[in-house]
Amino acid sequence: MRFGIIGAGTVGTTIGSKLVRLGHEVVIGSRPSGGGRAAAWVAEADDGAGEGTPAEAAAFGEVVVNCTPGAASLEALAAAGEENLAGKLLIDVANPLDFSAGSEPTLTVANDDSLGERIQRAFPATRVVKAFNTMNSEVMVDPSLVDGDHVIFVCGEDAEAKARVSDLLGEIGWPAERVLDLGGISAARATEALILLWLRLAALAGSYRFNFAIAPPAPDRG
Amino acid sequence: MRFGIIGAGTVGTTIGSKLVRLGHEVVIGSRPSGGGRAAAWVAEADDGAGEGTPAEAAAFGEVVVNCTPGAASLEALAAAGEENLAGKLLIDVANPLDFSAGSEPTLTVANDDSLGERIQRAFPATRVVKAFNTMNSEVMVDPSLVDGDHVIFVCGEDAEAKARVSDLLGEIGWPAERVLDLGGISAARATEALILLWLRLAALAGSYRFNFAIAPPAPDRG
Repeated sequence: MRFGIIGAGTVGTTIGSKLVRLGHEVVIGSRPSGGGRAAAWVAEADDGAGEGTPAEAAAFGEVVVNCTPGAASLEALAAAGEENLAGKLLIDVANPLDFSAGSEPTLTVANDDSLGERIQRAFPATRVVKAFNTMNSEVMVDPSLVDGDHVIFVCGEDAEAKARVSDLLGEIGWPAERVLDLGGISAARATEALILLWLRLAALAGSYRFNFAIAPPAPDRG
Repeated sequence: MRFGIIGAGTVGTTIGSKLVRLGHEVVIGSRPSGGGRAAAWVAEADDGAGEGTPAEAAAFGEVVVNCTPGAASLEALAAAGEENLAGKLLIDVANPLDFSAGSEPTLTVANDDSLGERIQRAFPATRVVKAFNTMNSEVMVDPSLVDGDHVIFVCGEDAEAKARVSDLLGEIGWPAERVLDLGGISAARATEALILLWLRLAALAGSYRFNFAIAPPAPDRG
């Protein structure tokens, strides 16, 4: 399948490399100001990797993946072009983190709205599925790095789009029973806010190699 | 030890009953408008259970536990009386949920502030520790109801106060390695927001008997 990835940072290139290794064609789109990271990625990646502008990447992809910093995502997707996103599945991986206030990061949108919802409202002809945004990029593409039945959350308005994301997650190595569908795109409020807890836990563990799990009822207790 | 619990709802009475069973003395404080739930609780509880006004409960407790609905907590604690809380450990169990907007609950405070911080600011002579607020009350007092290494989060400004809460959690049945200290009281932003995810997961599971766990690195992966 053809993927367009918007954003050439660690998240975009990590997901891009995994998709190429799985045999997909990937174009990473970034701005001229991106510092040449997409070109450096293409030089090191396997066959099937390309780069271009955000609009070229979006036009190339049957599926588009938003891997831009959340605070810049709406602008970046506007640059990618509404016409290049229309009718497509857009996987939104971004968290709207704002580090400008100093040591305590906050979210640029939270509680009664979310980045996922804002993207869905801004691109009504696009089927937005929020996914991958509650863990480190290394874990996103290799869940076996973390022990136990840890989970990945998806949400969005379109059931068929979510089913496609679940299939892709299966290809990456996420068993279906660990893909938790939280409902409509407003559930992005819950998963984006989880990054605040993730940041605290990463500081506590001194590591990014962990993930959230949901512990079930004890079988021997009524 | 003597505990004063503010709030006679399910959370307050569940924690109160557990503390009484552990041999502590507990006074649950509620308003005259509380519908007689505290009196009903005393009638069914073991020896050591009492009831009174919020101020009487707070004055009685060496430790005070805030089990009021989060949206009403500041008002309820003001009624309990700053002088009755001064110098004491206050365990804040509340989540500032607001269901008034309809089907999608939000928080009355979120992102760049939290209920835990507001309580700490309003009662600077009190040592506030946020705890218990990321699970159902049944699980709070009996972690064996849930399988696996699920966790409980604590945060607050005072290390000695957090150590006392960890000791209490150990008495209740929480092993020390599953009590995660997230740092200062501003970490309440992260744990209070987790209730949004908890509500989604409860709807998905059709059950309240679950909890969050943190999956560690896989031991066989470098």
